[in-house]
Amino acid sequence: MRLTLLGTGDARQVPVYGCQCPACEAAHADSRLRRRPCSALVELGNQRWLIDSGLPDLTERFPPRSFSGILQTHYHADHAQGLLHLRWGQGMVIPVHGPADPEGLSDLYKHPGILDFSQPFAAFESRTFGALQVTALPLLHSKPTLGYLLEGGGRRIAYLTDTVGLPADTLALLQQQALDVLVLDCSIPPQPQPPRNHNDLNLALQIIDALKPRTGVLTHVGHTLDAWLIEHGSELPDQVIVARDGMQV
Amino acid sequence: MRLTLLGTGDARQVPVYGCQCPACEAAHADSRLRRRPCSALVELGNQRWLIDSGLPDLTERFPPRSFSGILQTHYHADHAQGLLHLRWGQGMVIPVHGPADPEGLSDLYKHPGILDFSQPFAAFESRTFGALQVTALPLLHSKPTLGYLLEGGGRRIAYLTDTVGLPADTLALLQQQALDVLVLDCSIPPQPQPPRNHNDLNLALQIIDALKPRTGVLTHVGHTLDAWLIEHGSELPDQVIVARDGMQV
Repeated sequence: MRLTLLGTGDARQVPVYGCQCPACEAAHADSRLRRRPCSALVELGNQRWLIDSGLPDLTERFPPRSFSGILQTHYHADHAQGLLHLRWGQGMVIPVHGPADPEGLSDLYKHPGILDFSQPFAAFESRTFGALQVTALPLLHSKPTLGYLLEGGGRRIAYLTDTVGLPADTLALLQQQALDVLVLDCSIPPQPQPPRNHNDLNLALQIIDALKPRTGVLTHVGHTLDAWLIEHGSELPDQVIVARDGMQV
Repeated sequence: MRLTLLGTGDARQVPVYGCQCPACEAAHADSRLRRRPCSALVELGNQRWLIDSGLPDLTERFPPRSFSGILQTHYHADHAQGLLHLRWGQGMVIPVHGPADPEGLSDLYKHPGILDFSQPFAAFESRTFGALQVTALPLLHSKPTLGYLLEGGGRRIAYLTDTVGLPADTLALLQQQALDVLVLDCSIPPQPQPPRNHNDLNLALQIIDALKPRTGVLTHVGHTLDAWLIEHGSELPDQVIVARDGMQV
């Protein structure tokens, strides 16, 4: 099982439009430091599933029928805006498995086009796609949001974004698993107060310590965290790495 | 006054994802034939206004402070989805002048970021931006929609999309003007029944005949019209041209 991180930024992306902080200046100078909308691709055998659809150029990156469907974590624009165009394709049906969210994004449910939203995940439901098993894990966010436990090919990966902390039952389930990789929301540097909607680095490291994955990967990274990491990146624990767009884990 | 057509496609764009019609195949083979979300840039003196914001890469095309603001025709996703990311910039305020639409797009009004939606146009209201005068013209569409009459530098251009036909008072106002250019919604080839929401070629040519601009420019072109034009393009009246992305009028 291969997981490719297609985008690793927060809603503002990096560089932030109009920002001249060291992290944004560095991303202007070196495109490898850019962070696009947080999303990933999981591949195993004949299965290729997108996780989230916030990239605006999905129809250019993925030729028709080159992926199996979409595992949607939630329907905030930065995670779903690529669907606004993708839906107008033809000659195929693209299943979008995500949380039951009565709002969705904009008029996607009213005009779904080729997208099939008819099978939302129930909490902790597992589905099998070929050799890939996917389990939906409730997260804590400002909209109904699911993380995904991905199992297959002898590996076990948890992809948990967007979230601030974890619900007790999600934490309990994951503590029973030996995780090879935990990809985790870490949007902002350490905060003096408990953060809202997204993990800060303190909370992300607490979760990594509780779940003890072989590797912890911080994603959904905002420019203030990137700026903080320029000075403090070497302070991260050994098993914790910071995601980059295009990284395979 | 210079008007650049940044995008000339309908909501599906050209090529349509998954389509193998002659128009879509041609656009795959020659990127000059592609059609991105319908939008334009009007420039006069120190004024640079975007018309619509459906392009997903606005922050890459337009460096911070390189344009004055946005004239929004309406809030359908293909005309406004670029705002979902643009709003998260910083260090500036971008005025968005458009119709009074209580819905807008998604959560743009709730989380406007750097966008200022506070000054919607009233019907037939004129505003002056430097040497550029802009008049809002009500159109006929499935959402509150405005066209714009652009005057300045000795030229007069009407930009009318999305619309099916024209309201009587918009038609009457424009019939009193000598138009240099009329940029007009023409989404589909001639239809046997009256079209809905968008002009077909019959209706577009009727409007051009009623307004008698020096040049009529057909935009918001869908792939079925492009396919029709491959066989019938030479049948268009002399003063009527079909828009292309990047065309200056």
